[in-house]
Amino acid sequence: MAPRSGIMTQRARGLSPKPRNAFYAQSGGVTAVINASACGVIETAWKYPRRIGRIYAGRNGIVGALEEEFIDVGRETRATIRGLRHTPAGAFGSARYKLKTIEQDRAKYERLIEVFRAHDIGYFFYNGGNDSMDTALKVSAIGAELDYPITCIGVPKTIDNDLPGTDCCPGFGSVAKYVAVSTREAALDVASMARTSTRVFVLEVMGRHAGWIAAAGGLAADREGELPQIILFPEIAFERERFLTRVRELVEARGYCVIVASEGTVDAAGHFLAESGTRDAFGHAQLGGVAPVVAEMIRAAHGYKFHWAVADYLQRAARHIASKTDVEQAYAVGKAAVELALKGVNAVMPVILRKSARPYRWTIGAVPLAEVANRERKLPRDYITQDGFGITAAARRYLAPLIAGEDYPPYLDGLPAYVRLKALPVRKKLGAKFVA
Amino acid sequence: MAPRSGIMTQRARGLSPKPRNAFYAQSGGVTAVINASACGVIETAWKYPRRIGRIYAGRNGIVGALEEEFIDVGRETRATIRGLRHTPAGAFGSARYKLKTIEQDRAKYERLIEVFRAHDIGYFFYNGGNDSMDTALKVSAIGAELDYPITCIGVPKTIDNDLPGTDCCPGFGSVAKYVAVSTREAALDVASMARTSTRVFVLEVMGRHAGWIAAAGGLAADREGELPQIILFPEIAFERERFLTRVRELVEARGYCVIVASEGTVDAAGHFLAESGTRDAFGHAQLGGVAPVVAEMIRAAHGYKFHWAVADYLQRAARHIASKTDVEQAYAVGKAAVELALKGVNAVMPVILRKSARPYRWTIGAVPLAEVANRERKLPRDYITQDGFGITAAARRYLAPLIAGEDYPPYLDGLPAYVRLKALPVRKKLGAKFVA
Repeated sequence: MAPRSGIMTQRARGLSPKPRNAFYAQSGGVTAVINASACGVIETAWKYPRRIGRIYAGRNGIVGALEEEFIDVGRETRATIRGLRHTPAGAFGSARYKLKTIEQDRAKYERLIEVFRAHDIGYFFYNGGNDSMDTALKVSAIGAELDYPITCIGVPKTIDNDLPGTDCCPGFGSVAKYVAVSTREAALDVASMARTSTRVFVLEVMGRHAGWIAAAGGLAADREGELPQIILFPEIAFERERFLTRVRELVEARGYCVIVASEGTVDAAGHFLAESGTRDAFGHAQLGGVAPVVAEMIRAAHGYKFHWAVADYLQRAARHIASKTDVEQAYAVGKAAVELALKGVNAVMPVILRKSARPYRWTIGAVPLAEVANRERKLPRDYITQDGFGITAAARRYLAPLIAGEDYPPYLDGLPAYVRLKALPVRKKLGAKFVA
Repeated sequence: MAPRSGIMTQRARGLSPKPRNAFYAQSGGVTAVINASACGVIETAWKYPRRIGRIYAGRNGIVGALEEEFIDVGRETRATIRGLRHTPAGAFGSARYKLKTIEQDRAKYERLIEVFRAHDIGYFFYNGGNDSMDTALKVSAIGAELDYPITCIGVPKTIDNDLPGTDCCPGFGSVAKYVAVSTREAALDVASMARTSTRVFVLEVMGRHAGWIAAAGGLAADREGELPQIILFPEIAFERERFLTRVRELVEARGYCVIVASEGTVDAAGHFLAESGTRDAFGHAQLGGVAPVVAEMIRAAHGYKFHWAVADYLQRAARHIASKTDVEQAYAVGKAAVELALKGVNAVMPVILRKSARPYRWTIGAVPLAEVANRERKLPRDYITQDGFGITAAARRYLAPLIAGEDYPPYLDGLPAYVRLKALPVRKKLGAKFVA
């Protein structure tokens, strides 16, 4: 007989521990599938009522924990929670709110533990990116320090695909699909118009420091060279003259040119081509506007008529064209987070492991949060062509399965029927007010 | 027995005329469904081999006619032509190329007739908007003048929905669906982020002179007031202070605000909020950039963190989220164009007639080109709320059926399998070169 887990053994002895409550929070920029992870967490937690009591969610992420603003997940219907699987953005509210080091933000960490203690939170599921994994790790540490046992599991989420330890990040596959589909469609449009009108189309996409999303634009073509396309990656320093020459070559040879430009495109000095000057709560520069800069540069140099688009939130909210693979993986990491917690594992993040590329097969693993927190994974140089303007066959092999499959939401009267939570509050137990 | 048409009677007498060839051309900005109209024209023409001989298409629209650059439609497979129904943009190439009055451009009109005569073109199907209907009308007139019999039928196409005489324009329903869906999705995104980050999201949409597309943004909400939303229409002069006040009210009351801004938004003096200064071949100002202007205005006044998107070509090329109603109507007007021509009707455009709104029922009629050419239909004032920032119930009743139904293209490896034509040339018969 196979050895049984400690938990099973404990149960078998009739020593099943008293259920403790779970707290789930969404963090950072939202995605088309972060709610699918929430669905995975909640539906799985509901399967273990002897281990997990009530399920709460932070109203606006970690801010809801600090302010003791909990949403009572148990008061939502099963159908609504199921509907999260096909609903984009953060149904519970997310937050861009970074907790600094324990030394710098001790009062906030202690407040978190105080709130968790008041509600007997034994499980903390934090659904976010690099910064959030760092926070989850620190909550785990401060819990131990303050003698409050809490299992902290990170649930990966980022369209930037820059978390280490995982083959890909839930949220990325759907953005990648949106960018690939949109680029393919816009390329057909500009090809139609090029004889007498628009010859250059620029699509600006997200991806502050890593070119994963921009790379997905390369999938618009079935193979390298099929489209007259240029991709601008944050990893490749922008060289104006070389770029303008390539644009002219493509327009002269093929009649038009489609450019996918990362918002994080920088020049040799490391300056963003389009820096608006504002910064978000994490201190990151807020970008937007590389497309008009690039388009105007081309017009000035070559006089070509241009069009440009900035996809911005549309790309990460586009649940209507989500990748089925991405939806399934988002759900799976949510489910795995609960299963890991119930196995008594702490301070880890479930990850996606690629078992084979063709046919694409994947499974779920786990890595310690300490190996994920505050680290970024850049696009490998060998995913970018030698000239820096396209993607290689290796990139295609990596990216293609991530956009595979469609997972359409249900529609009502021509519009996706996204669910809305009741989001009823949990009664506060602490008197002291805390404003995050 | 029912009276038979003149054609049938002629045939019955064995006087069936020698088949003449057909010429189809795409004009102006392309749409997600203009190829569905092409499919309707071609598949219907193929049903009447005794009346219509060869089918040619203009390579890059009317430019292909002037330069005698014809695509031989007969050399495409049936499957490829069928695939046009789900393929966006202009598969034959379109053109922004306006023929002026017969007095001003007599040489070009005469050249058209010369080319048509060389290829025995008896039917001219011109798929475009207002300007193109004017061209089709003039070709019909010059044909008569030069004693060259040619049947000229317009096939309506414009995302701007501004053609008179028809309940709606093929191409519009799919843009409307894209804008409604994208706005709904982006609204969920900004609502998720508003507590600590983005409070204002601005989506810029097309619609140079008419607010039809902007109005579709109002469908993102199931009813008026559901979303904290502001729509900026070209029909309503932009008043900065009143707008900024409304933004503040919404953000204070609801936490965030979603703005759908038409590229054609103008101030009281009639100046575009975002005029880039370039003009297209028709002499229309090329717009783009109202979103960043509006977003920056809000930041300066209120300090709210913002995001903005410019959908540009993505919205009109988005076949992946096309309206089923729109696809069916686009096909139907193409089919009707051929049927009208074969009935001997000349210088008309098939139109969509609404028989009832709920349930939505429509049929095909026809109007003389003379009643369509160079006229624009604006959004009725009673489709816009009194404050000028939203859509009324009347607008909803009009718009809702146009976005109804999904008509997904087939996918291969995660991407829409759009067809590509062989686009083989027809051998030229005229010696003289002509450069359009």
